[in-house]
Amino acid sequence: MNKKAVVLLSGGLDSTTALYVALRDGFQAAALTLDYGQLHQREINCARVNAEALAVRHEVVRFGMPWKGSALLDPLIPVPAGRSPEAMQSTIPVTYVPARNTIFLAMAASYAETLDAEALFIGANALDYSGYPDCRPDYFNAMQAALNLGTKAGVEGRALTIHTPLLRLTKAEIVKLGQSLGVPFERTWSCYRGSEEPCRVCDACVLRAKGFEEAGLQDPTGSLSA
Amino acid sequence: MNKKAVVLLSGGLDSTTALYVALRDGFQAAALTLDYGQLHQREINCARVNAEALAVRHEVVRFGMPWKGSALLDPLIPVPAGRSPEAMQSTIPVTYVPARNTIFLAMAASYAETLDAEALFIGANALDYSGYPDCRPDYFNAMQAALNLGTKAGVEGRALTIHTPLLRLTKAEIVKLGQSLGVPFERTWSCYRGSEEPCRVCDACVLRAKGFEEAGLQDPTGSLSA
Repeated sequence: MNKKAVVLLSGGLDSTTALYVALRDGFQAAALTLDYGQLHQREINCARVNAEALAVRHEVVRFGMPWKGSALLDPLIPVPAGRSPEAMQSTIPVTYVPARNTIFLAMAASYAETLDAEALFIGANALDYSGYPDCRPDYFNAMQAALNLGTKAGVEGRALTIHTPLLRLTKAEIVKLGQSLGVPFERTWSCYRGSEEPCRVCDACVLRAKGFEEAGLQDPTGSLSA
Repeated sequence: MNKKAVVLLSGGLDSTTALYVALRDGFQAAALTLDYGQLHQREINCARVNAEALAVRHEVVRFGMPWKGSALLDPLIPVPAGRSPEAMQSTIPVTYVPARNTIFLAMAASYAETLDAEALFIGANALDYSGYPDCRPDYFNAMQAALNLGTKAGVEGRALTIHTPLLRLTKAEIVKLGQSLGVPFERTWSCYRGSEEPCRVCDACVLRAKGFEEAGLQDPTGSLSA
């Protein structure tokens, strides 16, 4: 029987690549998408399409967060535009969703326990990123300790290990890795705005463009009609 | 301006007492109830009634967990009956909800950040309890470390402190504390079964009865028509 993993799949470039890494590494993957009320719901469509194309079991759990507090949740908070990758890391931006990765990992751990999965995959990145605190290596180490102590799996000595295969890669390295694994970039969505086409100026678009440019590849995004 | 706290309020005896402790300690409390699909939905009614009676802001966030894996979620898994308090701690029972307190604390932290709250209250107890791993002191210390590293509040040096005022109390001590603070016991619901009356044989009922008996008090539960 294959070892099992729960993969947090937002539908973006990073999480989709993380799913492909999990499959490459021999895991039987179950994808988990959390619909927390993000305005860019298009990414969820991408998650659905990719999970289905891979015949990967997929759960979408919806829990609108009534408290918002992020530009990704509240249409009244403008998404920052035109920031350089360097500027992104100087402060935590308004696109920060409070405690998002802690919620994501907690939900993934819960799902993983019911599947007897041994691994959680998350496509977090701490190099070309927006300076979110819950994308940093120290944070993942702390969450690992909490899951070891706070889950049945952890207490009974079965591994429930957080895998962060993209954590220390540049965006260009992620793009190259994705290409080598056959990630359908045209079916991934990164833009923080939920419009028909990527805005090309939000942090997510800027970082994605930087990655493709430095990898020497063309980004096919925009061709998805999902 | 009062210091603010988010209080995880399930609607049971412990969480309701934790809410009263937060208010006693001078916090402006916002209550958070998580409807994760628990079969004993009656406790949510209690949470609503008590928050309203106290004029405490209250959010109920619903996210049915499609994966179940617990007797509290899956009607096909029988709730254990007639276990002694000692037996409860020998193994993790089927009423364990995978990673529940990690999900709860993550959601509470998220809400707390948007309120600029400095405290999270959770009515967990590690003495008269069912042996759940996510009710133990070491686990809460690990989660505190994760929240310190993984939230904007933590990174910016504002406290986001987990308060576990009941952690090392016996159930009798919790009952006495609740009585001294005026907790309306008749409007709290502990039973794991969602019937009209408490079953009196599940772990939650057994522990509650033990608490009232050892405190020398009568449990008025059952008189709530909510």
